[in-house]
Amino acid sequence: MKPVCLVIGAGAGIGGTVGKRFAREGYHAVLCRRTDQAGLAKLVEEIEREGGSASGFLMNAVAENTIEQRVAQVEADIGPIEIAIYNLGAQIGNRTLSETSAKAFEMGWRLGTLGLFRLAKSVCGPMVERGGGTLIVTSATAAVRGNAGQHSHAAAMGGRRLLCQTLNAELSPRNIHVAHVVVDGSVDAPDTLGKMLGPERFQALRETKGAEDGLMLPERIADTYCHIAQQHRSVWTHELDLRSFSDLPWWNH
Amino acid sequence: MKPVCLVIGAGAGIGGTVGKRFAREGYHAVLCRRTDQAGLAKLVEEIEREGGSASGFLMNAVAENTIEQRVAQVEADIGPIEIAIYNLGAQIGNRTLSETSAKAFEMGWRLGTLGLFRLAKSVCGPMVERGGGTLIVTSATAAVRGNAGQHSHAAAMGGRRLLCQTLNAELSPRNIHVAHVVVDGSVDAPDTLGKMLGPERFQALRETKGAEDGLMLPERIADTYCHIAQQHRSVWTHELDLRSFSDLPWWNH
Amino acid sequence: MKPVCLVIGAGAGIGGTVGKRFAREGYHAVLCRRTDQAGLAKLVEEIEREGGSASGFLMNAVAENTIEQRVAQVEADIGPIEIAIYNLGAQIGNRTLSETSAKAFEMGWRLGTLGLFRLAKSVCGPMVERGGGTLIVTSATAAVRGNAGQHSHAAAMGGRRLLCQTLNAELSPRNIHVAHVVVDGSVDAPDTLGKMLGPERFQALRETKGAEDGLMLPERIADTYCHIAQQHRSVWTHELDLRSFSDLPWWNH
Amino acid sequence: MKPVCLVIGAGAGIGGTVGKRFAREGYHAVLCRRTDQAGLAKLVEEIEREGGSASGFLMNAVAENTIEQRVAQVEADIGPIEIAIYNLGAQIGNRTLSETSAKAFEMGWRLGTLGLFRLAKSVCGPMVERGGGTLIVTSATAAVRGNAGQHSHAAAMGGRRLLCQTLNAELSPRNIHVAHVVVDGSVDAPDTLGKMLGPERFQALRETKGAEDGLMLPERIADTYCHIAQQHRSVWTHELDLRSFSDLPWWNH
Repeated sequence: MKPVCLVIGAGAGIGGTVGKRFAREGYHAVLCRRTDQAGLAKLVEEIEREGGSASGFLMNAVAENTIEQRVAQVEADIGPIEIAIYNLGAQIGNRTLSETSAKAFEMGWRLGTLGLFRLAKSVCGPMVERGGGTLIVTSATAAVRGNAGQHSHAAAMGGRRLLCQTLNAELSPRNIHVAHVVVDGSVDAPDTLGKMLGPERFQALRETKGAEDGLMLPERIADTYCHIAQQHRSVWTHELDLRSFSDLPWWNH
Repeated sequence: MKPVCLVIGAGAGIGGTVGKRFAREGYHAVLCRRTDQAGLAKLVEEIEREGGSASGFLMNAVAENTIEQRVAQVEADIGPIEIAIYNLGAQIGNRTLSETSAKAFEMGWRLGTLGLFRLAKSVCGPMVERGGGTLIVTSATAAVRGNAGQHSHAAAMGGRRLLCQTLNAELSPRNIHVAHVVVDGSVDAPDTLGKMLGPERFQALRETKGAEDGLMLPERIADTYCHIAQQHRSVWTHELDLRSFSDLPWWNH
Repeated sequence: MKPVCLVIGAGAGIGGTVGKRFAREGYHAVLCRRTDQAGLAKLVEEIEREGGSASGFLMNAVAENTIEQRVAQVEADIGPIEIAIYNLGAQIGNRTLSETSAKAFEMGWRLGTLGLFRLAKSVCGPMVERGGGTLIVTSATAAVRGNAGQHSHAAAMGGRRLLCQTLNAELSPRNIHVAHVVVDGSVDAPDTLGKMLGPERFQALRETKGAEDGLMLPERIADTYCHIAQQHRSVWTHELDLRSFSDLPWWNH
Repeated sequence: MKPVCLVIGAGAGIGGTVGKRFAREGYHAVLCRRTDQAGLAKLVEEIEREGGSASGFLMNAVAENTIEQRVAQVEADIGPIEIAIYNLGAQIGNRTLSETSAKAFEMGWRLGTLGLFRLAKSVCGPMVERGGGTLIVTSATAAVRGNAGQHSHAAAMGGRRLLCQTLNAELSPRNIHVAHVVVDGSVDAPDTLGKMLGPERFQALRETKGAEDGLMLPERIADTYCHIAQQHRSVWTHELDLRSFSDLPWWNH
């Protein structure tokens, strides 16, 4: 029985690519995403064609008990979750305060903060019992500073970052590696950036900025996730940032 | 008609004391708290006895529409809210991940993050229309770093801090001063610290640590809130920390 | 004998204005600056005309023993230094790495970091012996993040900020209030901004940005320095930021 | 001709180990350290025995022109420096302000801040001309916060960190990867921790804390340096922290 790498938010960007990468490293990838059964099936197929193993599940992470049940089912039927990746974004674009509904604000929190809490509650118990594990959390610039129009996103991601620090304080001594990855730039991802921009603008961006490595490549982000998971426990990284060489860090302008 | 200083979370610690202080500065203090009608009445009375004016309302800030209706009613019946103080805490003491229920986590967010969003949405529209205002947010060490047992609190306050930065980005150019005050220590407050410790341990702490100014005095915290509200708009402070001279800052140990 | 407020870097911007303000609060202001005897004399005169008392000294703060001797002389001849203000800037404008000489880099450190260390070493001993004091350090955006062209300045101010935290860790429990003030914007100061821009561009800026409170007013910065010095020791602020309502904070763009 | 990895501060801890690791990756390691010709020769020998290539030089990094000349000589005689590692520490243990001499404070800056500036000035010109390179800077907890007794060290490392951010702002768009590595714990290094503790206490620590991975292993730190150097330029990390799973992060206590 292979150890499992569970990915919450396994679209055709960071999540799916990271899952594929860990499959190559010998894990059974369990890929969860909200929609697009066809995309999910294709991803599983690609992994299997490479000789890896994977399962895909459609799952609405904000609905009650979905994360909890999925974790329990995977632990029971597939294998021990050694690596969990929380990769749900909560970006809704820039909106003024008056344009940001309480509903949108709550949805940001459910995706950005609560879902991670639910995943950690579900998966860290078994990890502690087995003596260890890895929890890698994809995060964003909005986790380190609020900016105009980011009322929902920054509140959600700011909560996510400090939740990671709290999880780390409790779980690191129990041999669970919690890492918070600040993705500080645009990712070359059709399911997120692509949908935000629309196919034409996204393609144009790939051909200009992307052609010069200005878009962050999911395959190369996966290299770093993989490195984090392989770090020796005497030298764990809790937080790191990632951005293209040609992009300004969030603290510069 | 006096301008109004609205305090959400006006117990016998920072909130009530700040309200009393702004009443002394010429504002009508509108004091809102969840429970203790008698304590609220006493506070209003004290303000009036000093020659100030105040109103007190019991209000459950996490219930639907309460903050929104209170703001609307105050604006309609009492006067323009020039200063709003968000002073609700969300500390529930240290709990491990497994001891922290999803319900407690959600309550932390409702008090720590969502309530501020709702207040800002309600009160900043009228402020912008009138050309300005002040929003001071009491915050905590947990807003700048997660620590063991603070899953709910740190997630809520980390969200609060970045929400303040986002509000500031939008509202500061519209002449609304948003300030995030990091209270990094124990406050000499019977309604919060007092209840957490119980009357005897609280009294003992006052007589030891407190006797040497090791407990933060609400009256003196109010001095700084008052200074923030009076800062000229060419030199606004967005964030400051407060702690006793004898306490270690959060970044030291 | 009046208590003394010593200002290192007392030009016609923050330094001189803060000195004047503390003179109004009852301190004897000792004003030190590198050049401009006439400007210094005028400042002393203005203070005396208002009924205050002050002394002015030309002093090259980077030369050996100057700060040390001045502190000793003031303590011996004028009065106990209760408040010390370190207000020397080290901004030399943006220069690329190759344009930044080792000499300029060292000068940045001497003004930005070492001078504060020398002041603290000189003045904090007597303060501790007398049971307390206040050390307020004017700082800059470059103390919290490096930016293009700021090789010398950011290294110097980053050192300054962490030196302040170290001083605070040792001195706060001994009743010395150490405060680090992040001035995050352009100050309406003829001796610094004025010299950098030249008289015509400076005047033009005052008439546009300044006319709408977009330049930070030294008199109003002095309000906050004064508040810091008056904070009760149960609620000291170690760090705060200051910027115009219309300016973007350093973390936004 | 092999590309060169230059290590400034190549003792028997992080520096030497990282050099050895890059030699394994195909670089010619140029190892510079202040003293211990025998240790240096042994390190070169070990690398050569493994089939790698290396040179060792004794060098006093704080003396004038030493870094500059070494870089020029390496570029002229050995090969292009593609990776430069700045690994000089400046820790002198905890000393009160009065125990910290101006000389010690200056030495901290020379090792902690100026040396990095001199290395960057020397090596980044050639790197830019060749179209890229990597500069990895070993740093410490003292780079992110001042603590009691760290007057010299925190000022030096705080300057180092913001210098790294400034270098990054200028050099990252020119294809030079600047990374600041916060080593937040005790490293299992005989040349630094070993000398600070003395052989007996060091050995005892290795047998207790070290036996349970509580001391950071230089070989495993080298894994992360290696990963940083291999990151694709669309996803560069500028800052990350490293600590043992069993150690508290600096922001917790």
